[in-house]
Amino acid sequence: MVDITGKSEVYREAMARGSIHLREQTIELIKRGKVEKGDPLYTAKIAGILAAKNTSSLIPLCHPIPLTNVDLDAKIVGDSTIDVEATVKTRAQTGVEMEALVSCAAALLTIWDMTKQYEKDQDGQYPYTLIRDIRVTRKVKDRNR
Amino acid sequence: MVDITGKSEVYREAMARGSIHLREQTIELIKRGKVEKGDPLYTAKIAGILAAKNTSSLIPLCHPIPLTNVDLDAKIVGDSTIDVEATVKTRAQTGVEMEALVSCAAALLTIWDMTKQYEKDQDGQYPYTLIRDIRVTRKVKDRNR
Amino acid sequence: MVDITGKSEVYREAMARGSIHLREQTIELIKRGKVEKGDPLYTAKIAGILAAKNTSSLIPLCHPIPLTNVDLDAKIVGDSTIDVEATVKTRAQTGVEMEALVSCAAALLTIWDMTKQYEKDQDGQYPYTLIRDIRVTRKVKDRNR
Amino acid sequence: MVDITGKSEVYREAMARGSIHLREQTIELIKRGKVEKGDPLYTAKIAGILAAKNTSSLIPLCHPIPLTNVDLDAKIVGDSTIDVEATVKTRAQTGVEMEALVSCAAALLTIWDMTKQYEKDQDGQYPYTLIRDIRVTRKVKDRNR
Amino acid sequence: MVDITGKSEVYREAMARGSIHLREQTIELIKRGKVEKGDPLYTAKIAGILAAKNTSSLIPLCHPIPLTNVDLDAKIVGDSTIDVEATVKTRAQTGVEMEALVSCAAALLTIWDMTKQYEKDQDGQYPYTLIRDIRVTRKVKDRNR
Amino acid sequence: MVDITGKSEVYREAMARGSIHLREQTIELIKRGKVEKGDPLYTAKIAGILAAKNTSSLIPLCHPIPLTNVDLDAKIVGDSTIDVEATVKTRAQTGVEMEALVSCAAALLTIWDMTKQYEKDQDGQYPYTLIRDIRVTRKVKDRNR
Repeated sequence: MVDITGKSEVYREAMARGSIHLREQTIELIKRGKVEKGDPLYTAKIAGILAAKNTSSLIPLCHPIPLTNVDLDAKIVGDSTIDVEATVKTRAQTGVEMEALVSCAAALLTIWDMTKQYEKDQDGQYPYTLIRDIRVTRKVKDRNR
Repeated sequence: MVDITGKSEVYREAMARGSIHLREQTIELIKRGKVEKGDPLYTAKIAGILAAKNTSSLIPLCHPIPLTNVDLDAKIVGDSTIDVEATVKTRAQTGVEMEALVSCAAALLTIWDMTKQYEKDQDGQYPYTLIRDIRVTRKVKDRNR
Repeated sequence: MVDITGKSEVYREAMARGSIHLREQTIELIKRGKVEKGDPLYTAKIAGILAAKNTSSLIPLCHPIPLTNVDLDAKIVGDSTIDVEATVKTRAQTGVEMEALVSCAAALLTIWDMTKQYEKDQDGQYPYTLIRDIRVTRKVKDRNR
Repeated sequence: MVDITGKSEVYREAMARGSIHLREQTIELIKRGKVEKGDPLYTAKIAGILAAKNTSSLIPLCHPIPLTNVDLDAKIVGDSTIDVEATVKTRAQTGVEMEALVSCAAALLTIWDMTKQYEKDQDGQYPYTLIRDIRVTRKVKDRNR
Repeated sequence: MVDITGKSEVYREAMARGSIHLREQTIELIKRGKVEKGDPLYTAKIAGILAAKNTSSLIPLCHPIPLTNVDLDAKIVGDSTIDVEATVKTRAQTGVEMEALVSCAAALLTIWDMTKQYEKDQDGQYPYTLIRDIRVTRKVKDRNR
Repeated sequence: MVDITGKSEVYREAMARGSIHLREQTIELIKRGKVEKGDPLYTAKIAGILAAKNTSSLIPLCHPIPLTNVDLDAKIVGDSTIDVEATVKTRAQTGVEMEALVSCAAALLTIWDMTKQYEKDQDGQYPYTLIRDIRVTRKVKDRNR
């Protein structure tokens, strides 16, 4: 664990993004509100916010830090993709990119879980479903804020 | 939540895979055991196993089920990639693909956290680091085992 | 803790109910989808399902048991009340009334949290908001199922 | 989640109350220290304090905040009622009424669990037991403390 | 993680013991019910039972298994020692000695926490307090029960 | 719970130590990297760091506080003993000796779990294995740091 004792508390923000590829029929079901388990995008948002707050239990060397905001946006782009973007803010001694990444990943995994019954092929396998390109798109550290 | 009350307990197994793209210098540091925070691959393994057991707290509509085995393999492939493969087994009323996916994702995120100090550019951004292609590679349901 | 070692695994189900009294204006906002923090009823449902799975960590002497289904229904009744009903099913050595009660309580508390900005008076107090009558409405134990 | 980044850290306190209605015979057993599972009031106190600290995991949009004090009082009033009062203090950017409510609810649910064997009727139902009137009785925000 | 897929579910029980050495004055305060933070022995019991249920989150390679009973006994022996004994039962594919050890350790640590204000010397150090000899005193595996 | 509302945030550090006695053959296996479940010392380190962050959930009356560093050292001393030393740092209103003790205990218990297959005798009992002398070796409170 990195020793952050001597670091000062400053405003920090991080944004992470990722996407999940689903079958076109599944995307159609989401658009029409016909997914049996509930609303995948809204459930993903709740799961992502909860996961951000749980980061230091999931990632062994992460510091437990207070978060002043977690925001999660999940939206359909194109015929077979959902993009998720997580933004986390704090005023702390270390950055929150891991919190943003964990939040984004948890949201994408939740979308998988909510739609998996429509993604399986006849052998119960998932040849189409794919979580792609989880990365940090922005990190801010602002001493004047 | 899907009602699994009427389903019978059978042997189930799922395997999930994903990878993380890191800078070549970071991969070199891992190979030479020079990562300051510790061993990224072994830490990822521990984090992945713990996360698998925590799946029903992270993914809202997952059932809490006992697991008889979680195995996680993390290895360097090529100059800038680490592949992670998680295998989960159980004897339960529902499958364990979400547990395998959660385990794989937590391991990849842990590798990010362990190496992030070497991945940042001079502006504190992560232009190279990327988690890619998390998917279920195998699902087994065997009534005779 | 009650020793349930000698008890046999049978089908069990429990239903719990409770309600929350809110201001009429708040109920109007919910009906019109205008609550700033999101959808109180759907968020309550997710929180209630997650809480049911977490019962043995919250209630000290509860046994950790697998759940085969958790269902939560939250609906507006009249001008100022939301009713929550949680149903939990399992096949286990002990009943699930505590899981149903915990699920119901967590859902009601989540509705409070989602709407609290509209419930405060000018002094920041909550003279109207009230969680009422949480109770077990049905418990089933069926050896033939 | 409400963005509290710009809010200042001030002293905050919240008090929540609720009660549980039990059978007179059960109240008698508690008074005489004859409840087989242990001391319902003391166990409720411990469960309520632990739950307060766990609020941001239970209530999806709650901020994780440090708490400087959690106090819980559970007492018998009349022949068939136990009153629970939870007080939570902090110095933070947002209030602690949800922590007080969660603490109070967890304590009441724990009393149910500790006494449920005496509350069931011959059909295993709970026609008498009732958790009532959980509400916030006081909220303080003091910039001078 | 050991693969227990092929093992059969049998009755299993484990007992663990340990002790904590405190100052004689502290033991006197416990005996007279004068510990300001509450009852150390009863609080230890609750903490030990909760910890047993949390074993697979604390110990990375432990399997998550249902427990049919956790019992914890904490008693004063002599002038300066408290003995803790934890007994855990299950019907599962693997043993519960880790659950018994974790339960015992959590109970002993809780006693430390409850009494630490009386154990410090004038420099805020703990020259007297000592947790000793945590071990498994009995392990049972019975195919006929 | 002690009310720490009025206390000021100062630098605090605590160190806890303990040891586990194992069979000489087991120590040999660890030295030669032949333990089947993995690396007991490194796994103990990860488990100890995670446990420190989880202290306020395990020990009922502990305050949830941010930690700026957790460090854990596990090393073989002599033929049959492993010493574990946990150091925890923070800037908070209360000390971190419980976090250091919990971290140390979790690490020792993890070593037990990782090596238990070599410690059992022919009856499945553990006559040799013993966790010994967990204590706080240093506590620092420094207003000038």
